[in-house]
Amino acid sequence: MRAVDLIKAKRDGARLSAAEIGEFLTAVTAGTVPDYQVSALLMAILFRGLDDAELTAWTEGMLRSGEVVDLSSVRGSKVDKHSTGGVGDKVSICLAPLVAACGVRVPMVAGRGLGHTGGTIDKLESIAGFQVSIPIARYREILSQVGAVIIGQTDQIAPADRKLYALRDVTGTVESIPLIAASIMSKKLAEGIDALVLDVKVGQGAFMKTEAQARRLAEALIGIGERMGKPTVALLSDMEQPLGLTVGNALEIAEAVEVLEGKGPADVRELTLELGTEMLQLGRGLAHDEARRELEARLTSGAGLQKLLAMVEAQGGDPKVLENGGAGLPKAPEKMSIAAPRGGRVQSLNAELVGQAAMLLGAGRETLDDRVDPAVGVVLQHKIGDAVLAGDALATIHGRTKGIGQAMLLLERAYRIEDRPAAARQLMVGRMQSRIGGSQ
Amino acid sequence: MRAVDLIKAKRDGARLSAAEIGEFLTAVTAGTVPDYQVSALLMAILFRGLDDAELTAWTEGMLRSGEVVDLSSVRGSKVDKHSTGGVGDKVSICLAPLVAACGVRVPMVAGRGLGHTGGTIDKLESIAGFQVSIPIARYREILSQVGAVIIGQTDQIAPADRKLYALRDVTGTVESIPLIAASIMSKKLAEGIDALVLDVKVGQGAFMKTEAQARRLAEALIGIGERMGKPTVALLSDMEQPLGLTVGNALEIAEAVEVLEGKGPADVRELTLELGTEMLQLGRGLAHDEARRELEARLTSGAGLQKLLAMVEAQGGDPKVLENGGAGLPKAPEKMSIAAPRGGRVQSLNAELVGQAAMLLGAGRETLDDRVDPAVGVVLQHKIGDAVLAGDALATIHGRTKGIGQAMLLLERAYRIEDRPAAARQLMVGRMQSRIGGSQ
Repeated sequence: MRAVDLIKAKRDGARLSAAEIGEFLTAVTAGTVPDYQVSALLMAILFRGLDDAELTAWTEGMLRSGEVVDLSSVRGSKVDKHSTGGVGDKVSICLAPLVAACGVRVPMVAGRGLGHTGGTIDKLESIAGFQVSIPIARYREILSQVGAVIIGQTDQIAPADRKLYALRDVTGTVESIPLIAASIMSKKLAEGIDALVLDVKVGQGAFMKTEAQARRLAEALIGIGERMGKPTVALLSDMEQPLGLTVGNALEIAEAVEVLEGKGPADVRELTLELGTEMLQLGRGLAHDEARRELEARLTSGAGLQKLLAMVEAQGGDPKVLENGGAGLPKAPEKMSIAAPRGGRVQSLNAELVGQAAMLLGAGRETLDDRVDPAVGVVLQHKIGDAVLAGDALATIHGRTKGIGQAMLLLERAYRIEDRPAAARQLMVGRMQSRIGGSQ
Repeated sequence: MRAVDLIKAKRDGARLSAAEIGEFLTAVTAGTVPDYQVSALLMAILFRGLDDAELTAWTEGMLRSGEVVDLSSVRGSKVDKHSTGGVGDKVSICLAPLVAACGVRVPMVAGRGLGHTGGTIDKLESIAGFQVSIPIARYREILSQVGAVIIGQTDQIAPADRKLYALRDVTGTVESIPLIAASIMSKKLAEGIDALVLDVKVGQGAFMKTEAQARRLAEALIGIGERMGKPTVALLSDMEQPLGLTVGNALEIAEAVEVLEGKGPADVRELTLELGTEMLQLGRGLAHDEARRELEARLTSGAGLQKLLAMVEAQGGDPKVLENGGAGLPKAPEKMSIAAPRGGRVQSLNAELVGQAAMLLGAGRETLDDRVDPAVGVVLQHKIGDAVLAGDALATIHGRTKGIGQAMLLLERAYRIEDRPAAARQLMVGRMQSRIGGSQ
């Protein structure tokens, strides 16, 4: 294989064979193909796309570039959830233990935040002692004993994807639906799961700004799952405004605990239940309503919360910090609110700006090397549709000195208030599924 | 400027500003932008194109990356010719001295061969002692005293183009008409010329396979010339079969000498006269027929040949090797002919295969580092339209041991002979010109 021939073939709209793609990704992993050829091929793919067979081969190539965790020794169905990334999305933290409390194992490899979106791993690290990097043997053990485990991505999982992602980030080739889909699926399939539920975010705070784009991504993701023999369901959910009322690591952990206490914001609770229902349908073959009732019962009984505490303890964290509404979590010294400049209804609440405000306070990263401050973030007092009076607090910054002025300006810009009723927003935008079933 | 923002803008179909392009090419020349970003932008340009303003800025950026030769001290009009490359194209070697003999100065910076196409510089180096790398001061002097000078590209001319070309070659981004046009024009405009005549080759032996493609390239080239204030004419000429009867360095020099002696193959003579007529029109403001008559007179009188001999002498070469039909040029030890497998008319004669045969014999390069053998090549006994009998010699290889077997197979494949009359071929396919005039 000469890389330049692959580039020319894709450039001219030809289909690459599975062997060619496999060989190319092996060379990427080994570092034997120069970056300038890789980036040229990525740009050609951005323009020409990948068909189903190419997309499967590309995903498999990345998957095989590293380790695939063998979970065959862990009894029961293993089902994971993946979100395409949003602002205030703490669902994994309540969902994984809640589903585990219903008897489906949840082996989750999660990411860190970048830019205006947060990451589950950063959030969990705000729990004192919590280990996100643990040996695979221990990962299996926790999965068997507790039923849920959440770790960070390791160097062993899909190294080709990590290399490609770093290059895509600086060559304008992130925005390719097949490349996004292959990246997500190669990492998820490396976890050793039996089935997968996807939360594809739609809206101005998400990577996919329109429902049409989100559906195209969901189709690509589901198609890969199907061809790799993994039942896959995608829910499309709204990311026009942040999810829940908190944005920031410890703040979001506390909100996730609230949901597991049977309280918490309605949208976080609803999305957790909807995704959990799909996971139970796939993992245990339950009917929709039956699955949903079981999950609700585990919220009421506190069994989900107990699972979270057990998972935290198993991963070296101190579960006590989560008691009393997360009183033991890191707290920021400064709180400052922004006030409504006028009365009316909140018409829109720009998720991206809220995410950027939290990042500027130190809750997120601009570059991969930045350190995250677990304590800081934003608490929203009002969301779309709320009636406010001039001077009402709209949102509160939890910060130190860093970035407070700029964060306040961004938050002020994030809210649009007018006198008319706000257009109603649906949290759940759509549902798509693979043609292969989930029950076993 | 962040390179990734330029890449994204071009990828999404936006227009890059002249300042952005200038800054980018400065960074390319300085080596401060990584190759993987350069190749991603080149691929985005391949898909999205460059509009007139971008193309001009791109050409100017490459031109300014190096030296622009100042020929203001040389009296008279300076007009050059550039060919987009073909097989057996030795026209520059008869054209430059012939036009100089008519009083127009021809400052020519020419290239080396690569792949199946030959290069004027390689051909001239088959003349013992001929120097293709000479100081600019001496280049000016020869242009003043002789009127024609042909040198190789220097490191000082358009270094950004050299860097980009090397990268395009290995990233599948050669085949972009704006990038091809900018590459050609930046090098030609760096010569310090007043006007330019282009020979855009069309056909299976050329880079542009169809007349439509050739016209698009000619339009881009002429547009750049026009916007840079240089009157430009493009002739489109046939490259379906090789030009003339010889392919190989010393063999082609001998054929060019024949043309200057008033003999030689009709197509080489005709193309030389057509291109020369355009150069005299641009350089001296002559009418077409007047220009053509002057050129023909210089062929008959031998004044063109005298100019070639003077140029060879001025550039350190031994003009005596060109006497008696080039008897002093290097000769290959082996001659082997291929025979017609059947009688009939030559229907086609694949220029690319003939070029490859010559390259395999050692007349050309597969990679830039290969050395060229001046003596070897192919002499064609028959071309399209000729009637042959089974067993007639079609072509003769002039070789050493290297590549003879494979070259013979390629030559056999190059000829297609059938019983019907051959479709008539026009040497001159078309003519296009800039809206700015040429007389001064």
